[in-house]
Order: sequence, then C-alpha cells, then structure tokens
Amino acid sequence: MLVEPPEVDVACVLAGRVPIDEVGEPAMGPGRLHALIDGVFAIALTLLVLDLPKPGSSTQLAHDLLHQWPSFAAYLVSFVTLGILWIEHHGMMSAVRSIDRRFLERTLAFLLFISIIPWPTALAANYADHGVAAARTASVLYAGTMLMMGLTFAWGWRYLSNHPALVAEPARAAFPSGTRRALLGGLVYLVAVGVAFLSPTASFGIDAIVAVYFAASRSNVPALIVGAGSAARVDRPANG
Amino acid sequence: MLVEPPEVDVACVLAGRVPIDEVGEPAMGPGRLHALIDGVFAIALTLLVLDLPKPGSSTQLAHDLLHQWPSFAAYLVSFVTLGILWIEHHGMMSAVRSIDRRFLERTLAFLLFISIIPWPTALAANYADHGVAAARTASVLYAGTMLMMGLTFAWGWRYLSNHPALVAEPARAAFPSGTRRALLGGLVYLVAVGVAFLSPTASFGIDAIVAVYFAASRSNVPALIVGAGSAARVDRPANG
Amino acid sequence: MLVEPPEVDVACVLAGRVPIDEVGEPAMGPGRLHALIDGVFAIALTLLVLDLPKPGSSTQLAHDLLHQWPSFAAYLVSFVTLGILWIEHHGMMSAVRSIDRRFLERTLAFLLFISIIPWPTALAANYADHGVAAARTASVLYAGTMLMMGLTFAWGWRYLSNHPALVAEPARAAFPSGTRRALLGGLVYLVAVGVAFLSPTASFGIDAIVAVYFAASRSNVPALIVGAGSAARVDRPANG
Amino acid sequence: MLVEPPEVDVACVLAGRVPIDEVGEPAMGPGRLHALIDGVFAIALTLLVLDLPKPGSSTQLAHDLLHQWPSFAAYLVSFVTLGILWIEHHGMMSAVRSIDRRFLERTLAFLLFISIIPWPTALAANYADHGVAAARTASVLYAGTMLMMGLTFAWGWRYLSNHPALVAEPARAAFPSGTRRALLGGLVYLVAVGVAFLSPTASFGIDAIVAVYFAASRSNVPALIVGAGSAARVDRPANG
Repeated sequence: MLVEPPEVDVACVLAGRVPIDEVGEPAMGPGRLHALIDGVFAIALTLLVLDLPKPGSSTQLAHDLLHQWPSFAAYLVSFVTLGILWIEHHGMMSAVRSIDRRFLERTLAFLLFISIIPWPTALAANYADHGVAAARTASVLYAGTMLMMGLTFAWGWRYLSNHPALVAEPARAAFPSGTRRALLGGLVYLVAVGVAFLSPTASFGIDAIVAVYFAASRSNVPALIVGAGSAARVDRPANG
Repeated sequence: MLVEPPEVDVACVLAGRVPIDEVGEPAMGPGRLHALIDGVFAIALTLLVLDLPKPGSSTQLAHDLLHQWPSFAAYLVSFVTLGILWIEHHGMMSAVRSIDRRFLERTLAFLLFISIIPWPTALAANYADHGVAAARTASVLYAGTMLMMGLTFAWGWRYLSNHPALVAEPARAAFPSGTRRALLGGLVYLVAVGVAFLSPTASFGIDAIVAVYFAASRSNVPALIVGAGSAARVDRPANG
Repeated sequence: MLVEPPEVDVACVLAGRVPIDEVGEPAMGPGRLHALIDGVFAIALTLLVLDLPKPGSSTQLAHDLLHQWPSFAAYLVSFVTLGILWIEHHGMMSAVRSIDRRFLERTLAFLLFISIIPWPTALAANYADHGVAAARTASVLYAGTMLMMGLTFAWGWRYLSNHPALVAEPARAAFPSGTRRALLGGLVYLVAVGVAFLSPTASFGIDAIVAVYFAASRSNVPALIVGAGSAARVDRPANG
Repeated sequence: MLVEPPEVDVACVLAGRVPIDEVGEPAMGPGRLHALIDGVFAIALTLLVLDLPKPGSSTQLAHDLLHQWPSFAAYLVSFVTLGILWIEHHGMMSAVRSIDRRFLERTLAFLLFISIIPWPTALAANYADHGVAAARTASVLYAGTMLMMGLTFAWGWRYLSNHPALVAEPARAAFPSGTRRALLGGLVYLVAVGVAFLSPTASFGIDAIVAVYFAASRSNVPALIVGAGSAARVDRPANG
C-alpha cells in the first residue's frame, strides 16, 4: 500500500486542521484556534488606535496633543505588551499538536483579557492627570488586567505541562519552565497593582518596564519549544 | 505511478480548500468559510470592549465604574456565550467536508446574529437600571438575539443532518443529536424572552446561567463528531 | 526520483501559498490574498453593528428603537449584500490559481468599496426621514457605493477573462459569462442611482430587492467555476 | 521507504507552519505571522471608514459632505498607501522561509505604524481647513507616521539582507535592492515632513503622489523575489 497512516498523520499535523486521537479523549487540531487567536490579537492591537486623542476643533493642535502624552505612552506600552505576548503565545502554541475542550476554555479566558486591554489603556490615558484617586483606579485596572492576562496565560502553560499528550514530544520537557516563566511574568503585575496604591505613576512605570524587559529578553524557553516541536514533526515520518 | 488520485483527495481535504464532488451538485471546500467565521467571531468578541464604560472626566472613577457593573456583567456573559458558541460551531464544522451555497447562506444567517451581539449587549448594559420598561425592552432584545443565534445554528446542524454527503461519514450519525442539542440550547432563550415580561433581571439571569451551563457542560456530541470526522480522514487512505 | 515536480506543483496549489510561473510574468499564489479579502469582509460585516441605534437614555426604549427602523433595514440589506458578495467573490477566487500585481490592484479597488459600505449604510439609516433632499443624497451615495463595488468586481472578472493563465483551465470558459453576470449585477445599481432623484425610498427598495434577488438566485456560473476549478486540481496529478 | 524527510520538509514549507532549522538558531515558520500581518492590514484598511464624516442632522447633506472633501481625500490616500504596502510587504514575505524573534520584533514595529494610520488620517481630515498651525501639525504627523512605517519596513528588508538564511536561496540576491527601494520609499516622507512647515497642503500632495507613484510603479524587485522564492520551493525536492 502506498499511503500509510503515519504519513497521513504527519500531513494532518502540518495542515494544522485535524485532530490526533492519542490523547485518550477526543481532541481537535489547533489550526482554527490559531486563526481565532491571531484575529483577536490583530483586532486588539488595531483597536488601540481608536482611543488616541483626536481633539474636535483645536487651534493649538500640537500643544493639545503633547498635553495628552499619557495617551501615546499608554498606546505604546499596550501595543508592545500585546506584541510580546503574541510572540510568547505563538511560541507555546507552535508545540501544541492537538487541543481539547478544557484547553480551548483556558485559551478563551486568556483571550478575554487580551481583547479587554483597549479598555484599561483608554482609562489609563484619560485619568493619568485627573487627580490621584482616579489615576490610582486606572492604574489598578491596567495592572490588574495585565495580571489576569499573565495568570490565564500561565494557566494554559500549566494545563499543557499536565497533559503532555497534547504537546509534541521533544517539546514536553520545556513546558514546566515555560509555566514558571509565564507565571513570574504575570506576578510582576501583582507588584504593579500594589504599587498603584502608593503611586499610580510608579505603577505605570512598572508596566512599561515589563514590556521593555520582555522585548529585550532572550529567554530560550519558547525557542527551545519551537525547536523541539519542529524536530518532532520532522522526525516522526522517519519512525513510520 | 506513485501519486494516485485517492491521496490527492485526502490532501485536498487536509488543505481545507478544495471541493469534493460526491455531493451531486457543485460544492466547495470549507477552508475559506472557516476564515470568515473565525474573523467574525474574533471581531465580535473584541468589539464588545468598545461599550465598556469610559466616563469622560470622573472624580470618583472607582465608584462610577462600580455603579456601572451591569456593563461588566453583560460583557462577560456575551464574551462567554460567544466563546462557547465558537467552540460548539467549531466542533460542528470540523466534521464538514464540503459546503454548498444553501449551507453558506445558513452560515451567513448565523453570523448575522453573532455579529449583532455587541448591540443588545450595549443596550442591556445601559438600560439595566433605567426603569422597568426600558430594561424589559433591552432584555427581550438580548434574549431574542441569542434565540435567533441558537435557531440559525440549529438550522445549520439540521441542514447537515439532511445532507449527509457534506459530512465526513463516521460523523453523520451524530448530527441528529447535535441538531437537537443546538435547538434545545436556542429554545432556552425563548424562556428568557418570556420571563423578560415578568422580570428583566431574571431574564438576564437565565442568559447568564445558559452561558455558565454550556461552559461547564461536557456533552460529547461535538467531541463525537470531531472524533468521527478525524477517524474518517485518517481511515480513508486505507481504502485507497 | 521519488518526488516529481508535478506533485509539488499540485501540493502548492492546494496549500494556496505558492506562485505558479506559467503566467509568463512573475505571479504569486492566492493564499494570502484570500486572508486579506476574508478579513476585510469579516470586519465590514461586523462594523455595521456600530451604527445600530443605541439611544443614550431613553424612557421609551422600544418606541425609540422602532422609530429608527430604517437603521435595522439598512443594516440587514448591507449585511445580506456583503454576504452574497462574499459568496460570489469566493466562487470566482476558487478558480484563481495564481495572481499578479494588476489583479491585486483590482482586488484592492474592490475591497475599497467593500470596506466603505458601513459609511453609506449609516448615512442611509440616519437620513431616511430627514427630508427628501438629505434622503436623496444618502440614497445616491448608498447605491453609488454598491455600483462602484459591482463595477470593480466585474473589473476583476474581466481581468481574469483576459488573462486565462491565472485561472484553472477547466474554469476558463465560464469567466466571460461570470463577467457579464457581475457587470449586470453592478449596473442595476445605476438604475437605483437614477431612481434616487425621483424617490429615495424607491431607490433603497431597489437595493433591497437586489440583495434578495441574488440571495434567492441560483445562477450556476460560480458553481460551474468551482466545479471546473476542482476538477482541474483533482485531474492534474493523473497527467503527471 | 517511500516517504523521506526531504518531502516532509517541502510539505512543511508549503503548509507554512513549520520552522526550518538551517538558520543555526531556533526559528519558526512564517505561517502565523502572515495571519497577524493580514489581520492588522485588513483591520486598519477597514477602520479608516469610521472617520468618514457622518453629520448628525444635516439639512444640506450633499453640501456638508462636499465641504468635508479632505476626509475623503485622506481616506483614499491612506487606503491606497496601505494597499500598496500590503502588496510590497507580501512580496517580501513570500521569499521568507523562516523567522526568528528579532525579525518578529521588527515586523511588530512595522505593524505599530500600520495600525496607527487611521489616527493621523483622521487628524489630517479634520484639520485640513482649521488654520495653518493645526494643518501643519496634522500634516507633520501624517507624513511622520508614513516615514516611520517606511523606515521600519526598510529595517525588516535590511534584517533579511543581513540574515540570508531566513530567505529562500534564489531570492537572496534581490534583498539588498529591495532594502534600498523600501528605504527610498520611506525617505520621500522625510521631504513631506519638511515641506509641511512651508505648506501643509503641499505636504499632503506629496503623500498622495507617493501613493499614486507606487500604485503605478512596476519595480520588478518584489516580482523577482517572488519568482525566485517560488523557484526555490519548486526546485528543492529535485535535490532530495
């Protein structure tokens, strides 16, 4: 027989659409989940622009825009944070071979906090200079959203750590450290929530530093996983 | 010759782009329909954020936001409902092997009610505490939209039940029970529409309970279909 | 040699990403153009919801919404028109094997009028009952946008008719009649533009009738093309 | 054994999802990056429509809209510029075989300026006739955004020039001239920024001319790259 099941299996994984039943329970391929995730990220990244200041009829446009610099700072921090998260989440997903309903639900919880980001971004931009009480509320909401996003991201990592059958074999070993990295990244925002009660400005500063740190960071966990996942897919037919 | 038509057929299904002509009438592959569905879901999920309260210049931001808690409740219920529906619809579509124009039209009718959800969500959020008459209108519109969404979803299930050629063979048996499940899920909202005339708050409560129930539910119909569809695709080359 | 160029060629077409150079000039595969088209359609379909009436604080919400019924009528007509167009455009694109820059530009011109549709829809909704002069302007803009959309769609059909190398061979014969169908569909809106000067309401009625007509129509041109394109792809390896 | 690693490798590239490890450092396939890019472009193209004038209750709608012609001009220039850029970026990406984190970051920087375009477009539309000072600010911001977009685009080209392992082999030779072309295209906007201080209208004119020039231009650099990338992928199995 020319076409053997193993080859089809590999082709299935490559096409990213078809479930693999090794999981013991019914599971689906991750192809369309990628599409939903990429769509939500692309829209959240682009909706941020709707809250940039567009003064109705200003005679001193340059001055009025400069005065609203917190809007641009909040835009930039949110854009960079979303971008970094897309890269990190993409790294994790690249090793996922099949998904089940529990993982879908964890991913939707993560997407809830991704899609909500334009809201605390707009509040942070508007209330940076409307008195300390309002700025504190805005900075708690901003850091709190980021915290929930980090925790739901770590929740996904942890689920995959505990369900290695969903993950390409060579990448499985990297998932516990990936979980720790995501959890630590999320928990920094707990500090930002706390600091908001002392100084909203310092809290926003922490949010900005996290974005810069992860942009500059070269953790090899996602890279290891990608490399391992890739190796897994290339290797398998050789066993077939 | 190494490459035979059967293999190409499998590859076509995997690539998700190419029609299969067993249907008797011209049909298309579901690949790009997936893209449109995922796009509409991703945008509807993300547009919900535009209606979260952003008070222009509040001195008591925390108090004002807490006062608008119905907005957050409505956001959460709509997000969870959309997320669950994406999972369920994804389960159904994963067994669809080819589509025809009638099915496309039913899917567009379903997407009409998916894409409109941010509108009754905003009304429900705004009018939860603007007097009973307005709250009743808002809760009827909210539950009515969900009802239509459920009915058009069941309409798609039913069309596939009646046109088994569009469905991967091992999944066909699961479609009648899938149709019943979607119809029952939709008809609960008929109750919510009725209850709205007695108590708008109770009606919203039903909407929230449905979301929680389906999130917690472990019906194995979509899973059966996914498993069957997967088996179908893996098995076919063995017959080739 | 195990893997022969013909097979790779077929696989390329299936994967929808890789150009075919038979065109004589450099050309690209249509895969990512599909993604852009589906994205623009999904967003245009979903942005329509932003202009549904959300009265700020109405005590007679049901009455106020009913009073704004033209918004819902305009929403429905635009949604159905966009949905039908997506189906028809999808039919055309399913036979396209490779694309060149001129075709990309024609497609972008078509997408310009797709993405602008929420704007005349909002105007039509707002000005249906603001006096005849404003209603006439709105109905001319609405029908005019639809006219341009139809003409740019026909422009794409015509380009493919004149450049058969871009089209799967068995589908080529259907492209002249496809061009005529798209052109006729577009030119009906020229009538709607003219009628707007006599009666804006009658002009909107024509727009609605076109949507209903194309939804109910069962022209087999797109189906023929899809069937032909499919046959082409399935047949080719047999020649390899 | 029939199925050998080389074939899988080709299939991987076609599926656009799987990394190739020749790069020496861990790298990912470009498939999902395409999805993010296409999503951001599709949304930016479509969000432009939100800023077209929708006068609340005008009795002279035609006159009021004509009076706001700069909005339509700005819409058209931004749409065409985004469309051309999508074509050019698509040309570049079609030769990219794998990506690393540094390239992802450069692409995100480019997407930052793509997604922000609706904002200076709205400012340019609103302030074209609000006095010279505001028009100058708006035209500097518009041309400045385009400048940054061009520079980050050239930054991506340059990174690929310097990391040829990420690029399909036959396309590598075309990347230095692609870099120059992107850099020159971007630097024209530096002229537009300068001219804005003399005449905001002339500056907008330059922005419009650039869009028309690139739409009409037939540089064969992207085409060469596409052709070369295509050749690369078709050729490789022959070596297997």
